[in-house]
Amino acid sequence: MLVEAPYRLASASLSRPIFSPANSQKLIPLELRLCRDLLAEQSATAIHVDMSLGGIRLTDLTLSELQQMSISSRAKENIRNVLPELRRIASEIERSFDVEVLAVGKDSMPVRIAELTAGANAVLYLARKVSSERKSYLLGLPSHCTVSRSGHGVSLRSLHVTEHDVFGYARDEESVTESVLLSEFNNPLLRGFRVVRITPK
Amino acid sequence: MLVEAPYRLASASLSRPIFSPANSQKLIPLELRLCRDLLAEQSATAIHVDMSLGGIRLTDLTLSELQQMSISSRAKENIRNVLPELRRIASEIERSFDVEVLAVGKDSMPVRIAELTAGANAVLYLARKVSSERKSYLLGLPSHCTVSRSGHGVSLRSLHVTEHDVFGYARDEESVTESVLLSEFNNPLLRGFRVVRITPK
Amino acid sequence: MLVEAPYRLASASLSRPIFSPANSQKLIPLELRLCRDLLAEQSATAIHVDMSLGGIRLTDLTLSELQQMSISSRAKENIRNVLPELRRIASEIERSFDVEVLAVGKDSMPVRIAELTAGANAVLYLARKVSSERKSYLLGLPSHCTVSRSGHGVSLRSLHVTEHDVFGYARDEESVTESVLLSEFNNPLLRGFRVVRITPK
Repeated sequence: MLVEAPYRLASASLSRPIFSPANSQKLIPLELRLCRDLLAEQSATAIHVDMSLGGIRLTDLTLSELQQMSISSRAKENIRNVLPELRRIASEIERSFDVEVLAVGKDSMPVRIAELTAGANAVLYLARKVSSERKSYLLGLPSHCTVSRSGHGVSLRSLHVTEHDVFGYARDEESVTESVLLSEFNNPLLRGFRVVRITPK
Repeated sequence: MLVEAPYRLASASLSRPIFSPANSQKLIPLELRLCRDLLAEQSATAIHVDMSLGGIRLTDLTLSELQQMSISSRAKENIRNVLPELRRIASEIERSFDVEVLAVGKDSMPVRIAELTAGANAVLYLARKVSSERKSYLLGLPSHCTVSRSGHGVSLRSLHVTEHDVFGYARDEESVTESVLLSEFNNPLLRGFRVVRITPK
Repeated sequence: MLVEAPYRLASASLSRPIFSPANSQKLIPLELRLCRDLLAEQSATAIHVDMSLGGIRLTDLTLSELQQMSISSRAKENIRNVLPELRRIASEIERSFDVEVLAVGKDSMPVRIAELTAGANAVLYLARKVSSERKSYLLGLPSHCTVSRSGHGVSLRSLHVTEHDVFGYARDEESVTESVLLSEFNNPLLRGFRVVRITPK
């Protein structure tokens, strides 16, 4: 998604539902391809990828650079598996659009806003499912955020103290959220992460 | 103590005053025995022990499993010393009550609520002492919380942003808090931790 | 600067503008000399130095002690380069004023207040520059704080949840802040850190 100063919410985005474990790096190439597709419509100055490697340019990230980084050996192996593909897409983006692709990760505000926006889309997706199947589901939210209905959609507002005005938003075109209830509580096994239960009305 | 959804406070508890350094694992067997005693009165689905080992079942925690964990060697040694006793009590609990004993630690909301409840009991204990001895004492509080009188007791409310409605409570049967003053300030040597000075009125 | 209980703001301070990269330990001797100069005017019980070494006395910090600490090898090398000078100033302070010099760093409330006070002075310094040069500048603020005009000066208030009443203040003798605008936003490359843009009115 596209984020502009003062970095509070997305001003344009592409999203797609994916069902996959969240603890590997396999989704990064897919995310980077979505960025490339969005660049065809919207210009930008840099791409922040959700890899916490100190902000290095992906096209500069060689295997020997990776080897020297102080990250876990499991993380290194996960990255090694997708690195050729990532470097290929990053090179294509730099060539076609003259935009740097940076591995900023958890320190990036745009990555945080993307996480919240993706979460808002997930709430909407699940509300649609609850509404048609007439049964309840639980959804784990991203770290330190809370869900609310707002305007004609769903917002995930950040609860971090410096991010009081930062949020992700997904527009509810079909008004599915009007036919469900959202109730939120702390994940008992993972402090700082909240869970929302979506129930048919 | 017992915690039920939505995981905001204890609904039943057993407590006992102990004077001991807080930086070892020696208190864990004692805490686990209190859990076993509480299970005789209250049913539960799982026990969370204050050991941050990724949620492994204590009965599955062998010395070789422990050896492979990415924790400090000092922590490993502390755990090794109490492991046989812990495994024995955990087995007994699983056999008698069919309840899993999990090493969740800092990621657990019930452990957080236990920490706040224990702190509220400590404030009450010390208020009784201040009231009878007519002299002041300082008490270090658990991380990120603040003390207040509430209802007929003492509350330690969490200051973490996702835990605005989470607290520990201790009932003040003898109204000792009415004869003391509580004043709170930041620990100058340990950011995030507050200290309460309890003074006779 | 001098901080007294309940550790909310500085009650006396010395400051000096320095232009230097912030990621080394080269400024620590300079800071310690400012502390020594302040001690000539104000008495104190301990000095907290912005080095996160567990609170060890600088006069006890030998090369072999340093070698055994669990910090990065880069941090060790940076400290090794300034250690003889630091130990010399610390010894002089202990001899002349009978005040311990402790390497507390990020766990210290006085160090946090010093960081906020230094930031408030930096805002004032840059406001003066903006006002005379009639052009805009950006300033990166310390972690988790927000700037505001307050009284006859500038305040940097902490946004940490346990530090709601903690701040750094710099008095605006020449009323330079009246001729500039301050606008604040999140640093897109460094979550938790805010940036202030200072613009001529």
